[in-house]
Amino acid sequence: MIAVFLCEVNQTTPNISRYAIIVDMDAYIAVDVGGTRMRAAVYPQEGIAPIAVEKIRTTGRKGTPVERLIDLLKQIWPEKATVKGIGLAAPGYLDAQQGIVISAPNIPGWINLPLRHEIQSVFDVPVFLGNDANLAALGEWKYGAGKGHHHVLYITISTGIGGGIIIDDRLLVGAHGLAAEIGHVTILPDGPKCGCGHRGHLEALASGTAIAKYVAEQLVLGVPSSLSSLENPTAADISLAAEKGDALAIEAFNRAGSFLGMALADFLHTFNPSIVILGGGVSRSGRLIIDPIRNTLPRHVLSLEYIRDLVITTAVLGDDAGLVGALALARG
Amino acid sequence: MIAVFLCEVNQTTPNISRYAIIVDMDAYIAVDVGGTRMRAAVYPQEGIAPIAVEKIRTTGRKGTPVERLIDLLKQIWPEKATVKGIGLAAPGYLDAQQGIVISAPNIPGWINLPLRHEIQSVFDVPVFLGNDANLAALGEWKYGAGKGHHHVLYITISTGIGGGIIIDDRLLVGAHGLAAEIGHVTILPDGPKCGCGHRGHLEALASGTAIAKYVAEQLVLGVPSSLSSLENPTAADISLAAEKGDALAIEAFNRAGSFLGMALADFLHTFNPSIVILGGGVSRSGRLIIDPIRNTLPRHVLSLEYIRDLVITTAVLGDDAGLVGALALARG
Repeated sequence: MIAVFLCEVNQTTPNISRYAIIVDMDAYIAVDVGGTRMRAAVYPQEGIAPIAVEKIRTTGRKGTPVERLIDLLKQIWPEKATVKGIGLAAPGYLDAQQGIVISAPNIPGWINLPLRHEIQSVFDVPVFLGNDANLAALGEWKYGAGKGHHHVLYITISTGIGGGIIIDDRLLVGAHGLAAEIGHVTILPDGPKCGCGHRGHLEALASGTAIAKYVAEQLVLGVPSSLSSLENPTAADISLAAEKGDALAIEAFNRAGSFLGMALADFLHTFNPSIVILGGGVSRSGRLIIDPIRNTLPRHVLSLEYIRDLVITTAVLGDDAGLVGALALARG
Repeated sequence: MIAVFLCEVNQTTPNISRYAIIVDMDAYIAVDVGGTRMRAAVYPQEGIAPIAVEKIRTTGRKGTPVERLIDLLKQIWPEKATVKGIGLAAPGYLDAQQGIVISAPNIPGWINLPLRHEIQSVFDVPVFLGNDANLAALGEWKYGAGKGHHHVLYITISTGIGGGIIIDDRLLVGAHGLAAEIGHVTILPDGPKCGCGHRGHLEALASGTAIAKYVAEQLVLGVPSSLSSLENPTAADISLAAEKGDALAIEAFNRAGSFLGMALADFLHTFNPSIVILGGGVSRSGRLIIDPIRNTLPRHVLSLEYIRDLVITTAVLGDDAGLVGALALARG
C-alpha cells in the first residue's frame, strides 16, 4: 500500500543530482474510545478497509486512560505512511469544537479533559474529537446506510439512546458541541426515570434497558411468557422470544417502537430528514422494532408530507460506525 | 438613491465616443404574505431600511391571491433600480427548495401552488420562497436579536407557535423544506387538542390561544380574577392583568412559560443553540413569559452546560421580521 516513485530528474536542471523520491502513502488513524475498550485503526487515503486494527482495555493497571490511548496510538502508528490526522470518537459530553471531554461518566478522570491538546502535543498531527453517537451518524451517512442523503437522523438504541443528525451534508454539533442528545427528549412527563435522572425521556421508554425493564415488571405482575424461565431477560433474549411469537416479548417491542414513533414524529417536524437510520443493539431486531415505528408515525405526523419518501432503515456499519465516523472526521 | 456616474472617456481609447453611463442601483423586493394582508417592500443593496413599502389585502373581489400578489409587485416595482431578486415569505407548509406552497390553510387556492414559478415567469428575476416563521428567524439572526450567533432557535408565539432554526449560520429547512415546525412537538401526550388535530402539542399549551383558553376555563370554574369582567379575554388582556398583579393571569403565563421551558430543554438537547429568541405577540409580555421559561429550564436540562452562556431574549424586528427575512433570503 506504499506508493514509491523512482524518478530520474531532468539532467538539465542544475544542482540536483540523480535521486530517488519516496512518496509515502497518506494515512488516517481513527480511535473509538468506549467505557470498556478502545479500538484504533489505520486507514488509507480512501475507502473504509483498515490497514491495521488494534484494541486494548480502556482502564488497566498500567497508566491512565489517556496514557493508554497514547500507547495504543504509538503501537498502531504506521512506520512508512504519513499520518494526516487522527479522529477520536469518545462517549459522554464533549465540546467537540474545543476538543474537550466535558464528562465521560464511564471513564475515570475524564472530566474537563483537553483530550485533543493532550494527543496533539504528543503526535503533532491534527486531532479531531467527536461524540461517538454523532460520529456513528457521520460514518453511516458518508460510508453506510445514509449515502446520498443530505438530511439524516441516526438513532442508536442499545443500553441508552443516542444519535447524530446530518443537516444539509453537515454534522449538527451545536454551539458547544452538545447537540443530538435525542435520547433525552421528554415523551411522557410522568414516565419512568431515565439514567440521567429525569423522567419520561425516550431513553427511559425505548432503550434496550427500558425494554428489559418493562418485561421484568410484567413478569412480576404474572403476565405469562416464555421469558419467565430466564432470570434477567435482556433485550436480545426478548427479541428472540418475540421472533418465536411470545406475546409479552412482541408487546414489549411494540411499546418501545410506538414511543420511538412518537419521538420520531417530533424529530421529523423539527428536522424533516429524508432517512432515519436505526443503529445499536436493539436495531438488530429489525422489523420487530421498525414495524411499530412505521405504524405509529402516520398517527402522529402533522402532514403525510413528512413521511412521503421517508426511508426508515437499519445501520450497516455495525460496531464499526463510530470508528468509521472518526475516520470521516479526520478526513474532513 | 440612484447612483449616476457621468464619465468622460479617455480620448485615447479608440472607437468609444464621449458618453454617459448610468449605473442603476441594485434593489431587492421582499413580500410577507399573510392570511389577511400582503406587505411588499423594496430594499437597496444593503441595510434593512426600505425604499418603498406597500400593502394590500390578500383576498378581495379583484383577482386571485396570486394575481393580487403580481399586481402588488408591479405596483412597487422600482422604475430605475435593477431588481436582483424577490424573496417571498408565505404561511403554511412549503417546499422551499422547489418553490411550492403545499398548503396555506388561510389562503384560498394555495394548495400545491408552484408560487416561485408563477412569479418568476412574470418578472424574470430570481424568486426565493420561505416559510414565514423560518424567514423571521433568518431576519432576526441576520439583522436582529441574533446577530453574531451561529446557532439560533427562534420561537414565535402568537395565535399558534412556529419557529425557525439557524445551525452553523444556515437556515434549517430540511429535506422537503418542512423543518422547524417546533409548535408541533408533543409535550403532554394526553393534553389539550392542538389546532392541527393532535393532542398536547406545544402550540396547544403555550400559544396565545392556549393562554386565553386556559384562563377562560378557570373563569368558568369560578377562579376569582379581574379578567372575569371581560367577555373573552385575549392573551394581551391577560398580559395587562398580570402586570397589575392578577393571580390567575400570572398563573396562566407561568403555566405557558413552564411548558415552553420543557419544550426548550428538548430543543437545547437536540440543537444546542447559543441564543433563543422569542417572537410573536406573546413575546411582547417580556419577563412575564421569559421568567417562567428561565426558571423551568435548569430542572429539565441534562447538564447545566446547555444553559451556560445561553441567551434567552425577545425579537427586535417585530412585525417586520418575516419581511426582513424574505429580504435576507433574496440577498442570498
